[in-house]
Amino acid sequence: MSALRHEIRVELGARAYPIRIGAGLLANAPCWRNAITGKHALVVSDENVAPLYLQRVTAGLRDATLSTWILPAGEAHKTLDSAAKIFAALAQLGASRDATLIALGGGVVGDLAGFAAACWMRGIAFVQMPTTLLAMVDSSVGGKTGVDLPQGKNLVGAFHQPRAVIADTDTLASLPDRELRAGLAEVVKYGALGDADFFDWLEVNAAALLARDPDALADCIAHCCAQKAGIVARDETERGERALLNFGHTFGHALETVCGYGVLLHGEAVAIGMCLAAGLSQRSGRSTAADTTRLRDLLVRFGLPTSIPAGTDADALLAAMRLDKKNASGRLRVIAWRGVGRAEIFDDVEAAAIRAELTAAR
Amino acid sequence: MSALRHEIRVELGARAYPIRIGAGLLANAPCWRNAITGKHALVVSDENVAPLYLQRVTAGLRDATLSTWILPAGEAHKTLDSAAKIFAALAQLGASRDATLIALGGGVVGDLAGFAAACWMRGIAFVQMPTTLLAMVDSSVGGKTGVDLPQGKNLVGAFHQPRAVIADTDTLASLPDRELRAGLAEVVKYGALGDADFFDWLEVNAAALLARDPDALADCIAHCCAQKAGIVARDETERGERALLNFGHTFGHALETVCGYGVLLHGEAVAIGMCLAAGLSQRSGRSTAADTTRLRDLLVRFGLPTSIPAGTDADALLAAMRLDKKNASGRLRVIAWRGVGRAEIFDDVEAAAIRAELTAAR
Repeated sequence: MSALRHEIRVELGARAYPIRIGAGLLANAPCWRNAITGKHALVVSDENVAPLYLQRVTAGLRDATLSTWILPAGEAHKTLDSAAKIFAALAQLGASRDATLIALGGGVVGDLAGFAAACWMRGIAFVQMPTTLLAMVDSSVGGKTGVDLPQGKNLVGAFHQPRAVIADTDTLASLPDRELRAGLAEVVKYGALGDADFFDWLEVNAAALLARDPDALADCIAHCCAQKAGIVARDETERGERALLNFGHTFGHALETVCGYGVLLHGEAVAIGMCLAAGLSQRSGRSTAADTTRLRDLLVRFGLPTSIPAGTDADALLAAMRLDKKNASGRLRVIAWRGVGRAEIFDDVEAAAIRAELTAAR
Repeated sequence: MSALRHEIRVELGARAYPIRIGAGLLANAPCWRNAITGKHALVVSDENVAPLYLQRVTAGLRDATLSTWILPAGEAHKTLDSAAKIFAALAQLGASRDATLIALGGGVVGDLAGFAAACWMRGIAFVQMPTTLLAMVDSSVGGKTGVDLPQGKNLVGAFHQPRAVIADTDTLASLPDRELRAGLAEVVKYGALGDADFFDWLEVNAAALLARDPDALADCIAHCCAQKAGIVARDETERGERALLNFGHTFGHALETVCGYGVLLHGEAVAIGMCLAAGLSQRSGRSTAADTTRLRDLLVRFGLPTSIPAGTDADALLAAMRLDKKNASGRLRVIAWRGVGRAEIFDDVEAAAIRAELTAAR
């Protein structure tokens, strides 16, 4: 049974594209086949996802010259070395400039494969087929691609928009609980940064989401994608407003780097990071304790961590934050908030204030 | 003595930039300092160029937080591994999104450093300071950046325009003869592909160019840059006309790949490639033997090779050509010509015709 429940368009002129959300979409090739042009296609996936869903995709590509590249699962593999392996697979396939790369998996697969697509012959088409909640609501939309370095997350990358995003909500049924919860952290982010009504909705529907109610999940994904599509259309390369989508991420990326890639899931690090951002805002008198508590409570209901893992070094976190892409010429810039639904850029934050928050939150 | 002789603008809207050509420009920091924004700068150069010219550049950057990265010279180092080393140097420097990368050297340094600039934090500013004739007339202008794979030249890369191109003609005095001649191959290309008058001018001024007459060289560079700037402004990402700049390059890249990177200089491979393209055109009745001879004679006067090195396998060349970025879905596309000044795209060329030319030209 295939049912397209939502279609959202990312309005980027000649590079506009659809986000399609619904059940059974992967096996419904007519829903995505026209986004794949040219003769050659390479599907990139990982060892968790491929056994479950790869065949649904390849079945729809019988007329293409097709190859697949399966990488080990996990953030530790979002590296330049993995990108080099995808390049070798594209060379092996004889992929020309009109080839299409398909990313079937979570955020790691999408970011990595998108970066490879951006660089192969200076840019070929790619299609995102996200299979995790986090990838559906966030990383598959908007064209940010990249790989991690030992020194920091996503330090190497490109802006490269997909031709289409195909979010088959059936794939969420097989998602481990911990991954579902990590995705819900990014969902909470949308409410927290710019939509108090959606935050209310999440508080009301938390139980349905945790129970994986298909309609609740699909509506939630569509809401997040619509919010992100609007921001991306207004500010594709993050000159302004798009930076707000990094609410919780300055702290979160530093936590991922310092704790070791893959120890905290990205969404878990973002959950902690949002609490830190709220705490920093409250400490500077820009938001209330009530808002901090409301955010923390919702994250706790979703089973997410809200404080820094024991033993994490505050100085190491601060050092990692200094390499964040949002900083300019050594000044620390953090996305924090004035309360639920009202994130803003805090420029030139004192290192001492951040250190105080990092110390308090352990 | 510093003398700015020519300034050409590449008209790309918000990303427009100047090409400045003249003597003594590197030591004349006011000529380029304003193109370098932000606090951090990384200068990338190679072991041949750095001892001669690096100090002139760093002297003009005393107020920046500066680092340098010197790589071994030669095409064999235009790799993903070298890019990874530049990323590590940028991380070490603490380079934020407003940092500038400066490429001081020939085409290898410019292509590699430009690719690193395109990818670091999804794109930072970079400035080209070409020190070879080839880089001045061709590779430093137009925003094509990239690295080689074992399977082919420039298979991985990005379009990323520099903020400025600073061509100090003093640096040509130290250029080895073989490198100067290789640069003249790209110069001949401009006349051959689209400007018969310039081809005439080259025939008249060949001796002055070989004698490194500074005015002749500067005027020649300016002419090539103006021609390229026009083409790039009309077709930045090579949807059409820009492909003509690849005259001689489909064969040339295959020769470089099959002979081993660095065995033939890029310009030498292009010289042979142009003769092959002319031969292919003549064989198909689209150009005359007189045009082929005229091209070959000028290349010979410039001391350039015009036939395939003995022992090079025609099948291996053909296989390498199939991976060329200009091909679409397995069809072979070659830039060939109708005679001096009239290059055009030959679509869907028969493999047999190319094999015949490759066999005849040994």
